[in-house]
Amino acid sequence: MELKTVYRLVQNDLTKVERQIKAVTEVDFPGLAELLKHILLGGKAIRPVLTLLSARFYDYDLARLMPMAISVELLHTATLVHDDAIDNSSVRRGKPTVNSLWGEDRAVLLGDYLFARAGEFAAMTGDLRVVRLFAQTLQIISSGELRQTFDAFNLKQSRQNYFERITAKTASLFSLSTQSGAILSRAPEASIQALRRYGTNLGIAFQIVDDLLDFTGTEKELGKPVGSDLAQGTFTLPAMLLLERYPEDNPVSEMFTNRDMPEAAKQARIEQAIEMVANSAIVDECYKIASGYCLQACQELDLLPDKPVRKAMIEVADFVVSRKN
Amino acid sequence: MELKTVYRLVQNDLTKVERQIKAVTEVDFPGLAELLKHILLGGKAIRPVLTLLSARFYDYDLARLMPMAISVELLHTATLVHDDAIDNSSVRRGKPTVNSLWGEDRAVLLGDYLFARAGEFAAMTGDLRVVRLFAQTLQIISSGELRQTFDAFNLKQSRQNYFERITAKTASLFSLSTQSGAILSRAPEASIQALRRYGTNLGIAFQIVDDLLDFTGTEKELGKPVGSDLAQGTFTLPAMLLLERYPEDNPVSEMFTNRDMPEAAKQARIEQAIEMVANSAIVDECYKIASGYCLQACQELDLLPDKPVRKAMIEVADFVVSRKN
Repeated sequence: MELKTVYRLVQNDLTKVERQIKAVTEVDFPGLAELLKHILLGGKAIRPVLTLLSARFYDYDLARLMPMAISVELLHTATLVHDDAIDNSSVRRGKPTVNSLWGEDRAVLLGDYLFARAGEFAAMTGDLRVVRLFAQTLQIISSGELRQTFDAFNLKQSRQNYFERITAKTASLFSLSTQSGAILSRAPEASIQALRRYGTNLGIAFQIVDDLLDFTGTEKELGKPVGSDLAQGTFTLPAMLLLERYPEDNPVSEMFTNRDMPEAAKQARIEQAIEMVANSAIVDECYKIASGYCLQACQELDLLPDKPVRKAMIEVADFVVSRKN
Repeated sequence: MELKTVYRLVQNDLTKVERQIKAVTEVDFPGLAELLKHILLGGKAIRPVLTLLSARFYDYDLARLMPMAISVELLHTATLVHDDAIDNSSVRRGKPTVNSLWGEDRAVLLGDYLFARAGEFAAMTGDLRVVRLFAQTLQIISSGELRQTFDAFNLKQSRQNYFERITAKTASLFSLSTQSGAILSRAPEASIQALRRYGTNLGIAFQIVDDLLDFTGTEKELGKPVGSDLAQGTFTLPAMLLLERYPEDNPVSEMFTNRDMPEAAKQARIEQAIEMVANSAIVDECYKIASGYCLQACQELDLLPDKPVRKAMIEVADFVVSRKN
């Protein structure tokens, strides 16, 4: 799977976005600059790409669009920094996390700073609707993450609960990315809504694949340890399907119920769960569900003008389900 | 010291602000609602009062001003929640902190949620300049707090360093509060700048008094333990003056230099420092410096129309240096 059409379309604009994100690290406070450099350079930039693509169905002014593409990437980065601090994660994208290198306190403050920079870039679009959407998205993400802390190690969660949670913590930012691009290109309301739904569905698919890769990936591919979700007590779709299939003697339920389990026993349960998922039809089932959301995302594009960007956005959807990290 | 003129002027509007802040706690997620109720009701509301007052020199539309008064209070609360989490503080305003009751992780996410709500209210003003100021203020606050983590337990700090730090972490939000009120009342640029400077100077005075009360107050008055700053390694003006006066055998320098000191010995040094400050001219000197900033703040008001609100804002300045908590 390659993103040929995508990059042919947005490479120029994306280079400018990346240059400006690099400029964010150039602050007159060496301690902060070091933290920013550590966290801001790298990553797939899928969210800014979505903002840039979503604006291409209509006419856009790059001077107003670019700040938003930067904003969604900074917002995403801020949430990662806080997530890692909360989860005490030590590795991300193959590098030590901010909290592991500089402590949880600085990670919290760095995240706050990035939220603020992201908000400033959103304001630079000059569009109050976009600014309001930005603020609402951060509310949805943080209350979604908060809900996750209440749901941790709770086996009595429905699939609906799972889908609500990933819609809040992941799909809302995808939807902000696409919607804001549409708004800033002065798309008609029906097109804005179609791109919003494309973003939401794509984001759900993205997170399902993410949750599956936590079982099927390798530490090298993922840039972080496999089984992290189970270790954190996050009950994801593959684990739910595993519990549905094997309601008795299930390693996930053993681990979630017995919270005092020694670390080695916990790790053994995680490995057992990973193997059970790999040797079952659960992998296929998750991909089928994720592909369903991607298909739904792509169908939304039918409502939009027939331009080359449509093909590019289908490519992104294909990439989301075929990616290995 | 009473705030008679202040309350006569803004009581009606302030009641509406408080009612709306209460409405912020009414969310459809019981876990979050509980956290919000715990943290949002209470407090002096000095920042919203400043926003409401600052708009009274010109004509304002309460429907656009009120969201900003709410926004500065939510922003302030968010920073308190994160500060307490970072400092592992257990008491604030006489109540257990969010981190002590629900853990640091939820405190981080609650703060993020409050930043987002604050940002949304700022956007509700419909004024992009105010939104941009809001985002810049959060940048200044979080990078100021970050600087504080680098400066912790460092005795080689100049007074300038101290004033820069408190300007960033406290005065910037006071200045946002006054400036935004001025902007939203369509004040002429010179008046906006005068109110900005009023806010900055008042905020510096406020923080100097805060730092002094950490030495001279009682736990009951403060609603938190005295000597918290020293315990955190935060080098404030009274401690700086103490070190200038007693460069040898100083309890602050002993405690800051010997980081492995047992807790009881540390506590003894803190109590010694508190007593030394109380029995010296340092208290008067700090009040003199704070009063100087308040005077400068009030002088800025001369540039503004001669209306009753001017007296109210002088009252606020008097309150800032006479308050006991």
